[in-house]
Amino acid sequence: MLSFVGLGISGFESIPIEGLDIISKADVVYLEQFTSPIGKSDLDKIQNSIKGEFRPAKRWLVEDGNEILEMAKEKDVVLLSYGDPYIATTHIELRTRAIENKTQTRSIHASSSLTSMIGECGLHFYKVGRIATIMSEMKSLTTPYYVIYKNLIEGNHTILLLEYNQDKNFFLDPKNALKGLLETEQGQRRKVLTESSYVIVASRIGFKDQKIISGKISSLTNIDFGKPPHTVIIPGRLHFTESDALKLFGKCIDKPFDNSEKTQKISIQMMKKYVPMVREALEEIESHYKDQKEFQVILENAELYINDAEKFLEDDQDEVAILSIGYADGLVDALRLAKGLEPKM
Amino acid sequence: MLSFVGLGISGFESIPIEGLDIISKADVVYLEQFTSPIGKSDLDKIQNSIKGEFRPAKRWLVEDGNEILEMAKEKDVVLLSYGDPYIATTHIELRTRAIENKTQTRSIHASSSLTSMIGECGLHFYKVGRIATIMSEMKSLTTPYYVIYKNLIEGNHTILLLEYNQDKNFFLDPKNALKGLLETEQGQRRKVLTESSYVIVASRIGFKDQKIISGKISSLTNIDFGKPPHTVIIPGRLHFTESDALKLFGKCIDKPFDNSEKTQKISIQMMKKYVPMVREALEEIESHYKDQKEFQVILENAELYINDAEKFLEDDQDEVAILSIGYADGLVDALRLAKGLEPKM
Repeated sequence: MLSFVGLGISGFESIPIEGLDIISKADVVYLEQFTSPIGKSDLDKIQNSIKGEFRPAKRWLVEDGNEILEMAKEKDVVLLSYGDPYIATTHIELRTRAIENKTQTRSIHASSSLTSMIGECGLHFYKVGRIATIMSEMKSLTTPYYVIYKNLIEGNHTILLLEYNQDKNFFLDPKNALKGLLETEQGQRRKVLTESSYVIVASRIGFKDQKIISGKISSLTNIDFGKPPHTVIIPGRLHFTESDALKLFGKCIDKPFDNSEKTQKISIQMMKKYVPMVREALEEIESHYKDQKEFQVILENAELYINDAEKFLEDDQDEVAILSIGYADGLVDALRLAKGLEPKM
Repeated sequence: MLSFVGLGISGFESIPIEGLDIISKADVVYLEQFTSPIGKSDLDKIQNSIKGEFRPAKRWLVEDGNEILEMAKEKDVVLLSYGDPYIATTHIELRTRAIENKTQTRSIHASSSLTSMIGECGLHFYKVGRIATIMSEMKSLTTPYYVIYKNLIEGNHTILLLEYNQDKNFFLDPKNALKGLLETEQGQRRKVLTESSYVIVASRIGFKDQKIISGKISSLTNIDFGKPPHTVIIPGRLHFTESDALKLFGKCIDKPFDNSEKTQKISIQMMKKYVPMVREALEEIESHYKDQKEFQVILENAELYINDAEKFLEDDQDEVAILSIGYADGLVDALRLAKGLEPKM
């Protein structure tokens, strides 16, 4: 039998009572600490509550899995881990392999830092978009950058998980993560993050020394976030109950505000540029064709498609809006090119 | 003092040990059951474990909050709820009001059905996109439909929470939710869901009679999903470890497959239509202008912009791709209109 037991987010005290019952009776309890560290006093409490053998399990041992799976064929084995057991995909794979081995499995879920930290910040979980991870070894942060971008244009909040390496006792500093994202902004220029974006740094969620500090990135430069682990949350559209809660649940250096207003969809950024440009180009060319009746239909169509483009954008039909303004621009530029004028694309 | 204590997803057994300690010592324990029902035997165990007063709390009582907040000014009060306490935004608001009242608050997190069900299905939580809710009173399901659409084009999984009404003892049937979404597809036609889309119905997650049944929508029509609560999950892109786990952790009527392949971005759907159309229109018009040198530059530009549009799409610059193909179409149609031919937009 192989049981996957979650310890929850607050050390020994957060283990579910059925989880405590299972670890106390097990033959062997492996404790996995590579997803998040577990303190000395919690370790002692765990060891004191079990009768069987206690084995710390490094990442390689869980990823390899052979020792645990062999042991579980004969004995009652527990893999105990921080938070909820199946947030770590390694644990899901281990369960898959156990079932393939015809070993019985059992799962005891527990509080996860993902759901807990959102509630602790006063944010609404149903507004959280896809989660992103930042590792120090990443050559480029374009992947997390575009996760934030896509979340922001939908008004969603983004959880940015920061690297933890148990072997090196390394925690990625939230300031370095934000610095990397600001550098990515310089290259990508989607107006996702600037020095005045609002971010939340949630530290040691679930522990007695938990800290939630938020503000503009520029205001957080000299803040001491305390001991790790830290997580960064980029809030999207904020309901007033979320802003109110954030102000009371944590420390806000600046008043919370909506990041999503600054981050416009690429389509909206384009339309802002092209609609006035094409309209101006059209006005400029009209006088060149005032005596040529066969071209009037082109001028009229250009006018119609500029107006349609604006209507489509209002209706959230962004792609059709862009197609229409591109088309109008093409009609106008054909007339310009035919007269030897510079095109306006 | 007002403590928000999560019961977790498996009834009394899933309460964290610190949560049990708090409810056992409290003066008053309110039990909220409007987010999910709690069974009779769990109710008995909860009541037996507390020394103070036990009060069931209906939705209106928690939303109104005055009784609980008044009580918490003087007494040690607990609001006990299914799952993690802050997934319900009502509880976050109540905590906000308590802090405004200068009442001390405390939060005990517990397993949430959101994180647990994803792990129980063998899916990766970091691939879950924004969550959607389906209520029977909704006049239209376009909101959840577009949440699924946006998740699918990013390859994300979607959790669809189904209505539960404690007062009416009503649970929205997953078959009705899927039927409503298929009807929405008829109107919206974004290729989000068809009878052959792959869906997972997760029932009573965390309980002994938990069921995970998945397959094409058409294969699930006659399946008995057992007792509620049910949740529907629309998987996006599936890693092979996710498919393998899903097959072993639940019952798959059909082999799991990737829903996101069928759902193309609007931009890709458009490009598939417009690129060959504009290319054909260009070829058709070329012969009309072969003796007019001043128009050659327009024909050349049209050719260039069609090619650019394809390159931009390959580079994931969808908006610029659409702008380019629209522009090329405009150039070509100007030449067509000038010769009295039908435009091709």
